[in-house]
Amino acid sequence: MQDPTVTTPQSVDTRLPAIEDTKRLVDAYLTMLFEERIAQANSVSKNYTTLWQSIARLSSAGGKRLRPYMLLLAYNMYAPDKQISSVVPAAAAQELIHLAMLIHDDIIDRDEVRYGVKNISGQYNETYAPYIADLNERHHFSTSAAIMAGDLLIAEAHTALGRCAIGNESLSAAQQILSKAIFSVVGGELLDAESTFRPRAEIDSLTIAREKTASYSFVSPLVTGATLAGAPAAIIDGLASFGTALGIAYQLQDDVLSMFGDELITGKSTSSDIVEGKYTYLIETFYTRASPQQSERMNEIFGNRQATSVDIQTARELLIDTGALQVVTEEITRLAADATNALNNIPMSDASHEAFASLVELSIRRVK
Amino acid sequence: MQDPTVTTPQSVDTRLPAIEDTKRLVDAYLTMLFEERIAQANSVSKNYTTLWQSIARLSSAGGKRLRPYMLLLAYNMYAPDKQISSVVPAAAAQELIHLAMLIHDDIIDRDEVRYGVKNISGQYNETYAPYIADLNERHHFSTSAAIMAGDLLIAEAHTALGRCAIGNESLSAAQQILSKAIFSVVGGELLDAESTFRPRAEIDSLTIAREKTASYSFVSPLVTGATLAGAPAAIIDGLASFGTALGIAYQLQDDVLSMFGDELITGKSTSSDIVEGKYTYLIETFYTRASPQQSERMNEIFGNRQATSVDIQTARELLIDTGALQVVTEEITRLAADATNALNNIPMSDASHEAFASLVELSIRRVK
Repeated sequence: MQDPTVTTPQSVDTRLPAIEDTKRLVDAYLTMLFEERIAQANSVSKNYTTLWQSIARLSSAGGKRLRPYMLLLAYNMYAPDKQISSVVPAAAAQELIHLAMLIHDDIIDRDEVRYGVKNISGQYNETYAPYIADLNERHHFSTSAAIMAGDLLIAEAHTALGRCAIGNESLSAAQQILSKAIFSVVGGELLDAESTFRPRAEIDSLTIAREKTASYSFVSPLVTGATLAGAPAAIIDGLASFGTALGIAYQLQDDVLSMFGDELITGKSTSSDIVEGKYTYLIETFYTRASPQQSERMNEIFGNRQATSVDIQTARELLIDTGALQVVTEEITRLAADATNALNNIPMSDASHEAFASLVELSIRRVK
Repeated sequence: MQDPTVTTPQSVDTRLPAIEDTKRLVDAYLTMLFEERIAQANSVSKNYTTLWQSIARLSSAGGKRLRPYMLLLAYNMYAPDKQISSVVPAAAAQELIHLAMLIHDDIIDRDEVRYGVKNISGQYNETYAPYIADLNERHHFSTSAAIMAGDLLIAEAHTALGRCAIGNESLSAAQQILSKAIFSVVGGELLDAESTFRPRAEIDSLTIAREKTASYSFVSPLVTGATLAGAPAAIIDGLASFGTALGIAYQLQDDVLSMFGDELITGKSTSSDIVEGKYTYLIETFYTRASPQQSERMNEIFGNRQATSVDIQTARELLIDTGALQVVTEEITRLAADATNALNNIPMSDASHEAFASLVELSIRRVK
């Protein structure tokens, strides 16, 4: 974990933040927060301390802090002369809510690995091993600990936001944006989970991408940053358009990486989406293009938790042969262009423009 | 559900609230909130609407709105001339966070019934029945929906609090209190869940009662109400002492009711605590007093999910025969006296005093 004393927030204040600076500032904030909570938990019970330590361990294991970065970029774009340090708690809030959602998402997706390390359920599966022999029982209680960890972090996100050294009106608006983001991400998450068993006619994979990813991970940090800076509605709307297009592009790219990416880069299994039966835009496109034979073959693999690595490879070939991969790749390119167009209509410095343009590149080109 | 138009908030404003008035005001607020969210969810997807409808259904099924009532009592105690309506959102926030915690608590306790109706997992078990034949799979996804419902309500609690028509400084303090309450209740909940399998030497049932119940359900609403009214530290400390004693008494009484109460009154199974192996103060007291034979007999029942109704009856007799029930009942009486003493040291009108005294009665005498 970062040591808060090694950062010198003043040195990057009021300048356009670099993503590494953001990570350092946000991680320093999170480290201090978790240390405080670990101490407070310890005054209740040693066993409560364990939960906060697990949270701190997971938080420090990875994450690019892209959401905090977007918030600071948007803030700096409209208020280049204001100190960034006053909104670092709001940037950290984006990371806290994200961590909460990842923890609960992993329960729903039955993943035990995140950022290449064990997530909360995974850590607690080890913590509880000496006490609970039955694997189902142990799973129930390690999952329960993960539910509680996520609950704590949802509350912490709201609390962190409230600690911004910023006017009350902006703060109240930012709190509404955070609530709206949670409304979106939970809706997207529900539809995403249900996509594994609901009839296909009921599922709209692009709605899921918009709600689960674009609204919460992109629009919310950008709009929060601009709102905290006091930006007018036209600029906020422009950032929302930019974030929506970019966020959907990011999710489609994520779906592609989940099938074709490298596990070492994404930090999660390359086959979990397909064996879980996640009805992504890639899969939706496949089924609209596949021959009956191709559909039939995919049906044997899609949503089949017993699928082998040979099956996964077959699924990859089916996605390529039907042109589904090509269609989705083109859609990602088109959405990135939409994002760039939205960006070009927002007045900002060349430096800000360059930073946002790099963000587009970073979001859609996450593999070598 | 209550129709918001039938309430006339002005008629009870600035007067000492009655518990029925509180329920009407808070339920009207919650009804409007959920109707708004159902409409917003419907613009995303019909299937997201279902989740909000499930939440609204559960919320309207029961609950005495004791937490909101305590908040309004404390507010009115210090600010008898101020309008109650300005803090109704904060009162509703207490109910929202409570509903969130109940929903997640039921997952952890593997209960499907709350307020005598199916809870979120229970409702979703029916919703998903046509799509998922395998019971374990269906349980996984209905539990996932319940996780998400709780997440939404934690966020809604913060949002509701932010909507109070109250000074910013008080509001910021109230938000810190809410966060602290969540920190307490989650800690208590974790220790409570772990009490079913951790070695008994690691468990302190009174710490669990304090964190899980007293701090969050009693101290938090009382202190929030007084804080929103602008009360000084001495009064807030007095209410905290009152709430701590009363809250622990309430939890001990709840433990007793869980073993000896009527399922129709408490709305939950009278045997779930014992078969789940919840190490309550009642059980802790039993084991300190039991003979080896009595301990051995209890060990066969406690934490045994296959226990029969005859076993449960035996457990009841063991709790009576060892005097454990008597000891806990006396402790409840002692704590109620502590609460009353704390109350008598807080300056307030006779009407307020009478209302708080009734609250003590209400909390510890919940069976005929």
